[in-house]
Amino acid sequence: MRCTVLTVGTEILFGSIVNTNSVYISQQLQELGIDVMYHMSVGDNPARLKEMLAHIYTDCDMIITTGGLGPTQDDLTKEMICEYFGERNVPFPEEMAKLEALFAKSERKMTENNRKQAFLPEHAVVLPNANGTAPGFWLEKDGKLIISLPGPPSEMKPMFDNEVKPRLLARQDSVLWSRNIMTYDIGESALETELLEFIDGQTDPTLATYAGTFQCKLRISSKRKTLEEARAAVDAMTEKVVKKIPDNIYSVEGEDIAQVVFKMLKERGLKLSSCESCTGGMFAAAVTDISGASEVFDRSLVTYSEKAKMEELGVSPATLERYSAVSSQTALEMAEGLRRASGSDVCVSVTGYAGPLGGTEEDPVGTFYVGLWYDGKCAAKRFTTRRPTRERVRKNAVLQMFLQIYKTLK
Amino acid sequence: MRCTVLTVGTEILFGSIVNTNSVYISQQLQELGIDVMYHMSVGDNPARLKEMLAHIYTDCDMIITTGGLGPTQDDLTKEMICEYFGERNVPFPEEMAKLEALFAKSERKMTENNRKQAFLPEHAVVLPNANGTAPGFWLEKDGKLIISLPGPPSEMKPMFDNEVKPRLLARQDSVLWSRNIMTYDIGESALETELLEFIDGQTDPTLATYAGTFQCKLRISSKRKTLEEARAAVDAMTEKVVKKIPDNIYSVEGEDIAQVVFKMLKERGLKLSSCESCTGGMFAAAVTDISGASEVFDRSLVTYSEKAKMEELGVSPATLERYSAVSSQTALEMAEGLRRASGSDVCVSVTGYAGPLGGTEEDPVGTFYVGLWYDGKCAAKRFTTRRPTRERVRKNAVLQMFLQIYKTLK
Repeated sequence: MRCTVLTVGTEILFGSIVNTNSVYISQQLQELGIDVMYHMSVGDNPARLKEMLAHIYTDCDMIITTGGLGPTQDDLTKEMICEYFGERNVPFPEEMAKLEALFAKSERKMTENNRKQAFLPEHAVVLPNANGTAPGFWLEKDGKLIISLPGPPSEMKPMFDNEVKPRLLARQDSVLWSRNIMTYDIGESALETELLEFIDGQTDPTLATYAGTFQCKLRISSKRKTLEEARAAVDAMTEKVVKKIPDNIYSVEGEDIAQVVFKMLKERGLKLSSCESCTGGMFAAAVTDISGASEVFDRSLVTYSEKAKMEELGVSPATLERYSAVSSQTALEMAEGLRRASGSDVCVSVTGYAGPLGGTEEDPVGTFYVGLWYDGKCAAKRFTTRRPTRERVRKNAVLQMFLQIYKTLK
Repeated sequence: MRCTVLTVGTEILFGSIVNTNSVYISQQLQELGIDVMYHMSVGDNPARLKEMLAHIYTDCDMIITTGGLGPTQDDLTKEMICEYFGERNVPFPEEMAKLEALFAKSERKMTENNRKQAFLPEHAVVLPNANGTAPGFWLEKDGKLIISLPGPPSEMKPMFDNEVKPRLLARQDSVLWSRNIMTYDIGESALETELLEFIDGQTDPTLATYAGTFQCKLRISSKRKTLEEARAAVDAMTEKVVKKIPDNIYSVEGEDIAQVVFKMLKERGLKLSSCESCTGGMFAAAVTDISGASEVFDRSLVTYSEKAKMEELGVSPATLERYSAVSSQTALEMAEGLRRASGSDVCVSVTGYAGPLGGTEEDPVGTFYVGLWYDGKCAAKRFTTRRPTRERVRKNAVLQMFLQIYKTLK
């Protein structure tokens, strides 16, 4: 199948919103093995909308549109599809009843415009909208497939997942199953080299690598007749991959490192505290981003100044003087001081040069030290950062703090 | 002028990257008063690329392309533009010399492919690339304007700003000047209502509102014969706006609230510390995101547990028992305790229900209290959050912490 993704809305052409709908739909279609030939965006303009449809019509056998299904005069996607494909735009009684019930409940007055949302191309299948008032639709006509979805991502994405994807899979007579393998301490090209025997010439399951910031994701997908077969194929390949790079995987369930560490701590009933200098609270913010963090997380002492490091953590003036605030010794004393202050089972510390100013010849901007107290032992480790912008150094430091905990508890 | 933005690259169609180039270019063109009619994306495919050019050619008088200017066989944008517009693709000696010098310096071998980057349409004007090896170009042909830019945003954006924008402005015989007014405590529709007299029927300067998360930005732009005239027009309108809503503006220079507060503190030589519960370090992370934060920021005590609140800040068990950890009283005691611990001039605290679990009947999820100690006085204030997802509550709390400091120091 050759598909075009047509996103409708003047706000896209103004650059007022980022077109994430095209990204989401394209990712999903790629997994389904459907080729995306074009992304197109037009404003709420009838002539240009029809022009685009005409173009797509000659070149693709499938169109997915988002946007322009709302109640206002501006919303024209449905009307233009009807005109182009010679469909009548007719009221769907069930949708009208739903809409009327909704308005009755909210005590808002239902206008003629609102009724427009329950009109659909006469041969269309309704795609219900669980998160908004505009239903989508699925229309097969003249050998073409037209799928129309609402514009807001919060409505479009669940509609795609729950209504569109199963129908596309049903047409394909196959089921897709994927798994995200989260790796660490290995770059994208090294990852590809390690797994070459599984990637090269492999048609199912397929392996694809995605480079993130300082870490890579590996996606294993299989498309088979049944879900059981697809799952079994993905699981068998996952086992091979884990065997090949056992020390570079922290999750085979697509969880990020903060979640993995949170679960480890929770399962073992361990309390965590942190003390942060260059990350300035980002580590704590990442931990507390998880709902339920209070079950494992006690405190973070963001000791940005040397004064705070001495007062809150008891780092000795002599250490700061002799080794500086960015040193293995300071990271160790921070972690030890945190243990004394909090009594937490796992105490992690970080100090470094986030830049753009600062740094020394031996420890340039991008260098940081992570200290970790656990089970009576305390150790510190030095890290550097490639292309050390302030943002990248801080992100890398947060990642390495989590990884140090993960490696120590593993 | 009617323009199409054509972004070239298979990675766009795969959904592997978000198409921020289209957003950036569209925003810039809108300011210049150039209408964007379409966004289109195609892969690195010669036939479809030419098809798109043919379509645009009939409908627009201007095309901006990004991507496909690199050295590999895949990179075809230049070649297809030449074919379509009947231009010869010829070596530009100056560009070739630059390229050769670059390779000589880096000691990498220059291949025939690399030389391809110094070939351009014979009638093109070179747009130098200060951040990469592929030059862009500006071509006027058959009454159409074609502008080709490289794909990486780090190369494309400066090239647009420094090479394309001035040339487009020169054609327009006018200069654009804009100012971003940052507002607070006012929603987008209230803002529009307040400023209606300036917005309605106003052709220059123009006022546009942009809704962000819990705050709105107002952009005032003027396009005049000279920069002085445009600046004067924007400044005169800015004065009127400030007079109209004096208590809803924290910056007329487009700075965010963290920067504004940072500068206030720095100018007055004041030290800031924070203690955070529901924001879990996000406030400190926002402050320390600013390079040079150490000049004003001392520490943040992220006291997530009740134990930490008592141990680090001396919040009394009786207060936690009687009023709970999320209360005006706890926020006050946190700020007072932080003052005792840090001695900082400004001590801000926050405690709240970020959700999704927790909250009480009187203080549902989304409620938080901000405490502030300054100049011997301590006060706490209650806030609520509309549509309180965990992320929105925490963002709102960080914003209100900054605003409380701003309002107190103003």
